[in-house]
Amino acid sequence: MREESTLVHSEGEYFVIQSDSHMAEHKINFHIEESNTTIATSVQTGALIAEATRKAGIELEQPCGGQGRCGRCIVQVKEGNVRRRSTLRLSAEDILDGYALICQSVVESNLEVFIPVQQKIARRMTSDRTAAEVRVPEDYSFPRSQTIQRIGLSISPPSIDDQTDDWSRLQTALRIQANISEVNCPVTLLRRIGTILRQGEWNVSAILDIPRDDVGKTARLIDLLPGIKPEEDPLWTAAIDIGTTTVSLWLVDLITGKVKAQTAEYNAQIARGEDVVSRIIFAGKNEGGEDLHNLVIGTINGLVDVACKRVNASPKEIIKVTIAGNSTMIHLLLGVPPESIRLAPFITAINNPPLMTAREVGLNICAEATVDCLPGVASYVGADITAGVLSSSLDKFDDIALFLDVGTNGEMVLGNRDWLVTCACSAGPAFEGAGVFHGMRATEGAIEEVWINGETYEPTYRVIGKGKPKGLCGSGLISILAELLLTGILDKAGNVNLTRNTNRVREGEHGGEYVVAWGAETEHGNDIVITRVDVDNLLRAKAAIYAGFSVLADQVGVSLKDVTKMLIGGSFGKYINVEKAIQIGLLPDMPWDRFEFLGNTSVRGAYYALLSWQARQRVAEIAHRMTYIELSADNSFYDSFMSAMFLPHTDMSRFPTVEANLKKE
Amino acid sequence: MREESTLVHSEGEYFVIQSDSHMAEHKINFHIEESNTTIATSVQTGALIAEATRKAGIELEQPCGGQGRCGRCIVQVKEGNVRRRSTLRLSAEDILDGYALICQSVVESNLEVFIPVQQKIARRMTSDRTAAEVRVPEDYSFPRSQTIQRIGLSISPPSIDDQTDDWSRLQTALRIQANISEVNCPVTLLRRIGTILRQGEWNVSAILDIPRDDVGKTARLIDLLPGIKPEEDPLWTAAIDIGTTTVSLWLVDLITGKVKAQTAEYNAQIARGEDVVSRIIFAGKNEGGEDLHNLVIGTINGLVDVACKRVNASPKEIIKVTIAGNSTMIHLLLGVPPESIRLAPFITAINNPPLMTAREVGLNICAEATVDCLPGVASYVGADITAGVLSSSLDKFDDIALFLDVGTNGEMVLGNRDWLVTCACSAGPAFEGAGVFHGMRATEGAIEEVWINGETYEPTYRVIGKGKPKGLCGSGLISILAELLLTGILDKAGNVNLTRNTNRVREGEHGGEYVVAWGAETEHGNDIVITRVDVDNLLRAKAAIYAGFSVLADQVGVSLKDVTKMLIGGSFGKYINVEKAIQIGLLPDMPWDRFEFLGNTSVRGAYYALLSWQARQRVAEIAHRMTYIELSADNSFYDSFMSAMFLPHTDMSRFPTVEANLKKE
Repeated sequence: MREESTLVHSEGEYFVIQSDSHMAEHKINFHIEESNTTIATSVQTGALIAEATRKAGIELEQPCGGQGRCGRCIVQVKEGNVRRRSTLRLSAEDILDGYALICQSVVESNLEVFIPVQQKIARRMTSDRTAAEVRVPEDYSFPRSQTIQRIGLSISPPSIDDQTDDWSRLQTALRIQANISEVNCPVTLLRRIGTILRQGEWNVSAILDIPRDDVGKTARLIDLLPGIKPEEDPLWTAAIDIGTTTVSLWLVDLITGKVKAQTAEYNAQIARGEDVVSRIIFAGKNEGGEDLHNLVIGTINGLVDVACKRVNASPKEIIKVTIAGNSTMIHLLLGVPPESIRLAPFITAINNPPLMTAREVGLNICAEATVDCLPGVASYVGADITAGVLSSSLDKFDDIALFLDVGTNGEMVLGNRDWLVTCACSAGPAFEGAGVFHGMRATEGAIEEVWINGETYEPTYRVIGKGKPKGLCGSGLISILAELLLTGILDKAGNVNLTRNTNRVREGEHGGEYVVAWGAETEHGNDIVITRVDVDNLLRAKAAIYAGFSVLADQVGVSLKDVTKMLIGGSFGKYINVEKAIQIGLLPDMPWDRFEFLGNTSVRGAYYALLSWQARQRVAEIAHRMTYIELSADNSFYDSFMSAMFLPHTDMSRFPTVEANLKKE
Repeated sequence: MREESTLVHSEGEYFVIQSDSHMAEHKINFHIEESNTTIATSVQTGALIAEATRKAGIELEQPCGGQGRCGRCIVQVKEGNVRRRSTLRLSAEDILDGYALICQSVVESNLEVFIPVQQKIARRMTSDRTAAEVRVPEDYSFPRSQTIQRIGLSISPPSIDDQTDDWSRLQTALRIQANISEVNCPVTLLRRIGTILRQGEWNVSAILDIPRDDVGKTARLIDLLPGIKPEEDPLWTAAIDIGTTTVSLWLVDLITGKVKAQTAEYNAQIARGEDVVSRIIFAGKNEGGEDLHNLVIGTINGLVDVACKRVNASPKEIIKVTIAGNSTMIHLLLGVPPESIRLAPFITAINNPPLMTAREVGLNICAEATVDCLPGVASYVGADITAGVLSSSLDKFDDIALFLDVGTNGEMVLGNRDWLVTCACSAGPAFEGAGVFHGMRATEGAIEEVWINGETYEPTYRVIGKGKPKGLCGSGLISILAELLLTGILDKAGNVNLTRNTNRVREGEHGGEYVVAWGAETEHGNDIVITRVDVDNLLRAKAAIYAGFSVLADQVGVSLKDVTKMLIGGSFGKYINVEKAIQIGLLPDMPWDRFEFLGNTSVRGAYYALLSWQARQRVAEIAHRMTYIELSADNSFYDSFMSAMFLPHTDMSRFPTVEANLKKE
């Protein structure tokens, strides 16, 4: 196993060993969007698409030098087969849509290749705003998958001979016309029934939530609308992920199951503290909890407005939301005091909230809309992780896989269809740019990737957006750390080698430092540096995460080598360079194709759970099945953490490819 | 039947026919509270107690002259048997407690008779404020009768080895320690669970509502209190009757089942209209419904405060209320628009409201307290009537009985254990004092009874309270009407005979009138009169009610003669003089002992339904069983009404005792 992965990176040899497919000449047609032209060429089986573009005389940017790290050489294979050596810049949807990097994709048949306008790619790489179309699960069927039903009813009008009350009249219609014998109606809706029945001239559409998993349960009337709605009329719902930093909302039409709008916004709670712990402390002060509750409700209501405007709907038409988020975010959303989460023995008030209504929670949607908060497992393994497991399908894997979500904390789940273990490492917010001198979030102006020349020690970097650099975001920090190690500017313990012949390395206020960008190049005019103190913070963060992997694997007696897939969720994973994350010892050393970047798995899991009661049941099973390991109570964690406080690790045998690279330098 | 009832009123003969018990001399001991003395005497079987007091030389006031009308000659029979000829001044409890009128009670054995201080009696007669002790139903048992349970739980505290969340911990304790496997918890309570568990150091008392009639249903957590409460600690609940005029509240301790405080107050909605119809009209105007909702909520919250102060409890300790009231009052309480009640075809929005919570309804008690509104039958036969039937036990009668509740409307139910028919007559508010020139409610200063001398035409009257008269209340109006008829001042059509030789009868602004009190005697200095217009309004009201009886009886093909009991609920019934009500044709002519005055049957029914789930189920069955007759759709009603627009009726054969009396005069 280890041997093979070494070979992957020793190019040339790779093809000899791996390529055993039928050797043949394949015809490649390139369709160039910008010029609206087609160019034909041909290559042998096993050649990269890059070789074909070269032969065809097509210039495509490859800033990373063909290493699959930058993702700029993306094309879309419309017909034919390619084998992707690396997918680290591709999402699961990208792959389904045929996207491939020319520097990483091996030709296996005749191909029709579409080359998009290069500006579109630049935008795609630097912005999250362009909503990728989300695929509706193939087996989705509104009548079969949903607990929500919309039922058109023709009700017999009252007369002096039939003075039955309005509510009984509606109940009778539901019983006879829809076979629903027991239905609950909230008083807020009872207040409106008479008016609605008469408005609709005794034709109405009843929207109900009817539990499917338990036949005996009572239906709940969510809304009643005058008139009988056409079957294809959209039925609006939303999947929501409440992140500590960002809240994401997908507006979903239940009839088709399609995501019709995606919106995201900073969680307004940020103004009261950047991380979970500072929020909990704030919540414990006078009215602090209520303030935080109101702030996140405001954020969600704002997202609802934006999303609804895009589809020309009213927020009051949203009749269900499914919500994922870490345990603290869910507590604050519901107004449940989160204090006990922070204090030993770290207890949540509630992991599995009951179904609630928008009115109870305070959301400005249909008052009786179902609010379904997905279940969490523990104080630091919340519904964002159970939703992540659902959307990664970890719980269905035959072989062992690892799901990782890195935000302020690193939560991870190791397992397969038979077992799931989970833990949370307090990595700290270093990878979100906090605790690092020039750290910043991954927004406009952040340096997100750096390459350092091994001889001149001069850097090349890529900045998010079109402006000058302002600071370093998480992926940029990982990148720098790896490059500093590979070029010998940092030793394995993270010390800065001040003897290198370059003015980029110098003694600064905070110890040895490396200048990534001179003041003349930057937005603010100051040098952007990375200091010895920054390195220490980053080391602690990556060591905590790697120690988490080790402890989980040890707990169940498996080796990290046995992990066949590394499923990475969260926005953090979206932009990091796997090679460099391995080089600093943040991710375990394994073949790149085992890494899969899934984007926001939390909102996606909420979407799946919103769409089908079977998926919702699966989340509950996932939460139930996950065994939580409390690292603060685990002695081996500290040992593992200390061992991981090196670059990449004290035990170099765990990182053979990194060792090989270091020897090369 | 008819013959017998004639005989009842022809004294002397009566005893010969009715008295067939063993004739003997009986010893009577009178214990006089005021002087703390005992006097012994003896009388024959069949003598009245009044004869014994005369023989013993005891002076007891008999202002009505021994006709059983005033109730002032009340005594308490502590031992021995008496037969009561009339109970019209006695409640069911009074009789159970041995109370009897000396002018109406026949001696049947040796007796020990207690004569209370006369002032106490006066107070008892003129004020409703002294709460009569309500008997707890004999079979009441908190554990067996209640859906409410209070369960003390010792919960294992969390540790680093058991990080189960608070809510799961509580659920586990309920499952293991109380065998409750499914429990719903509202978000408002979820917010407090963590704090309460820690306050109680993991000992808590859970208050739950657990439906008994349907085994599969889920328990609902109402409240959670720190610490384990002693079993005998009271558990506060309330039975409430929302009358159009008066709201009554009984505060009940569920542990003993006892009524611990009784309060009543005007419904604050009165300021927006005195009767149901004017309230409905007001509710239809801008925010009118909300205003009326808030007013009645305010009234109830005020009553809760007063009642709780009396028992030194906090309103937040009230964990359940059961509410009766007419359909309009229930609609307004719940904030449900009542408009359709008033307009043909007279439809309620809801007859059978689901269980709600205090938070939903707006009551200032325990937020998650169960609010149980009893079921009504139709727009004008509401939960006050179903509760009344429950408390009168009409639904258990072997023989046919009639339940009557006269307020603004006259609602009545005819039936027995096998069938129940009901209707509502829009009697109008005349008997509540409205639409009558000097009409007023039965409060301080109201003339409540009048006697007119047949020769001088001079009246004697009794006033509520100690002050001068201000006006005429319902019972006073009935009394005057009867006396005016018997003395020939009114003819059968209600015309005033101006030829009588008295200055009491005169031509006034509103036609012929009779002066009940001269200005010199009254509070305001004006003559208190009853006019021809007043008489017309009263005639219409009494005719509507009597026509209701006729239609109901005709509908089921029985005769009013077959009615073995006339069960009269509502405060109206409490003070009226049956003899006079029969004389004017308001009540059917039948022996007085068939009349039973039950007081506020609505609040009493709510109390029974609050106490036991079996009784609650019975109310639902009663509502289900009652067949409602819409009088406005019934042609025979108008005929019956017109026939009843005479004093007492066009068909005098229906009122033989009245006919006999009229002949006597």
